[in-house]
Amino acid sequence: MTAIDATAPATLAGFRALMDRLPPPDGEAIAGAQARNGVLTKPPGALGRLETIVAFLAGWQGRAIPQAERVRVSVFAGNHGIAARGVSAFPAEVTEQMVANFRHGGAAINQLCRMAGAEMTVAALDLDRPTRDFTEGAAMDESEVVAALVAGWAAVTPGLDLFIPGEMGIGNTTSAAAIAAALHGGSGWAGRGTGVDDAGLARKEAAVAAALARHAGQLDDPFEVLRRLGGREVAAMTGAILRARLLRVPVLLDGFIATAAAAVLEAARPGALDHCLAGHCSAEGAHGRLLARLGKEPLLSLEMRLGEGSGAAVALGVVRAAVACHAGMATFAEAGVSEG
Amino acid sequence: MTAIDATAPATLAGFRALMDRLPPPDGEAIAGAQARNGVLTKPPGALGRLETIVAFLAGWQGRAIPQAERVRVSVFAGNHGIAARGVSAFPAEVTEQMVANFRHGGAAINQLCRMAGAEMTVAALDLDRPTRDFTEGAAMDESEVVAALVAGWAAVTPGLDLFIPGEMGIGNTTSAAAIAAALHGGSGWAGRGTGVDDAGLARKEAAVAAALARHAGQLDDPFEVLRRLGGREVAAMTGAILRARLLRVPVLLDGFIATAAAAVLEAARPGALDHCLAGHCSAEGAHGRLLARLGKEPLLSLEMRLGEGSGAAVALGVVRAAVACHAGMATFAEAGVSEG
Repeated sequence: MTAIDATAPATLAGFRALMDRLPPPDGEAIAGAQARNGVLTKPPGALGRLETIVAFLAGWQGRAIPQAERVRVSVFAGNHGIAARGVSAFPAEVTEQMVANFRHGGAAINQLCRMAGAEMTVAALDLDRPTRDFTEGAAMDESEVVAALVAGWAAVTPGLDLFIPGEMGIGNTTSAAAIAAALHGGSGWAGRGTGVDDAGLARKEAAVAAALARHAGQLDDPFEVLRRLGGREVAAMTGAILRARLLRVPVLLDGFIATAAAAVLEAARPGALDHCLAGHCSAEGAHGRLLARLGKEPLLSLEMRLGEGSGAAVALGVVRAAVACHAGMATFAEAGVSEG
Repeated sequence: MTAIDATAPATLAGFRALMDRLPPPDGEAIAGAQARNGVLTKPPGALGRLETIVAFLAGWQGRAIPQAERVRVSVFAGNHGIAARGVSAFPAEVTEQMVANFRHGGAAINQLCRMAGAEMTVAALDLDRPTRDFTEGAAMDESEVVAALVAGWAAVTPGLDLFIPGEMGIGNTTSAAAIAAALHGGSGWAGRGTGVDDAGLARKEAAVAAALARHAGQLDDPFEVLRRLGGREVAAMTGAILRARLLRVPVLLDGFIATAAAAVLEAARPGALDHCLAGHCSAEGAHGRLLARLGKEPLLSLEMRLGEGSGAAVALGVVRAAVACHAGMATFAEAGVSEG
């Protein structure tokens, strides 16, 4: 491993500089996985997306027969100044209550990780210090956003077969909507989140519009978008996804907020998310639109809208199925089956 | 259990008569599952289709907290006279070779069952006696189709949490297309199957048209459609799905052929497939259309087209995820989380 693994950048400029150093996948491993797909006892291509998943994993893991054994789900939690504007159906204290629930094993993501044999980590990021209301100023100063990026960076370690970033943070769909609007333009990025009513949705839309007006002219740099409109858990996911790329650890993206965190990297450097698969398209209205902007076709569309990494954790079952078939199936020659 | 469980019908008339005796789901168990969905630590409805899956399972299993522990995948294999007409990319001997592969653990379905902890059974149905070419006459006589229905019937036993019928049979997408055309009318039910070229597809379309002409006026009764145009593995799946309904065992449907087998029951009695979820919409062209005719929204669309029960077995991961969340999550009260 290189020095990249040992030390996270200490400045936003340091993170920006890494965007010039993103490694590509291993073409030989991809070719090896595809060649094996072609001789397993099934018609060519008959496992559909399971075959493309395996080739994707092979490229980033650097082996022709990829694994899905060492999977980590890291859930980042943060509090948002914008929550005071009535943009959520739940009060802000739920962030901390849910962190306790994660730690006691009672949340959806706990059940999903247990079922899939995935390791789960939880990082509560300065919950007693919500980010600043981004309609009034930058959500974070540089030291705060760097600390959050580094918290994500630290969650990804060498040797993982797959990484899933998850989140919890009352108010964070509004932050994600503001980021998406800043990066991609247009309106309508706000959605129902945990289930706001029409008035709550109008408040979210107003908050996004106010944020764009407040920070106008200062949103050209994607990392600056993250600092001004993001939250700690959002920035942590950005940092984690970047670290995963540097370590060639493939990533399974969850919902709208995780995808907005990822979109920062793609805006900074097209292709930066080549190591990411979209696990699930959520019921949050703008998620499918954001995935389409990133060129990502989700594995699942199950109308989930929970966050926590839960949609990606369900999609992990598809990934594990793909790996199990590829690694375990007999070839035509081994099984004595006639080829078509 | 009633006498229904002990003895399968010995005639097609006996099977037809059972269509008047289909039990409904347990409404109290459904209500109990839904009530629990409402107090788990997540916004209402935030687990999307996972919540509807759980309510579905609860109704058929008759318990408010359903399970997915005792899952059986039964793969039925049969040979088809129609295969001699060049309707498949693979030679007919592949059916038997793949049965050996199933028994040795080398097929995709073996890996998927192993991963999900599902029991797998294989029934090779008179492979040395292909059904008659249905463009020339009825594929099976009454004793043959009844024997196949009974083979499927026997594969489903009381106490299963979920059942998945799978199949293998060179030529069987042509049989399924003929059944779909007979039940639902219209053209274009033939597809690429294991991967036939344009000429092969034209031969499939011609075979379906010839079959409909040959049996014109004799396809009003769905069980007669099954006898004339089906195959042994197709009829076995029909019998298994019917037995599952009588035992209130929920069923996860696989691809085009399994869905055609199920469609026979729905044509005989609307609502007969209320105990079935569609696991996966395959890449076989007409599968989505047939599912739509049955009012079934598939859980997955992963472009698989393998049969064996493989698409449903991948979807089993989603079902298991749903059950794990429902059974294992803390309630708001247990976790001390504020409700919205």
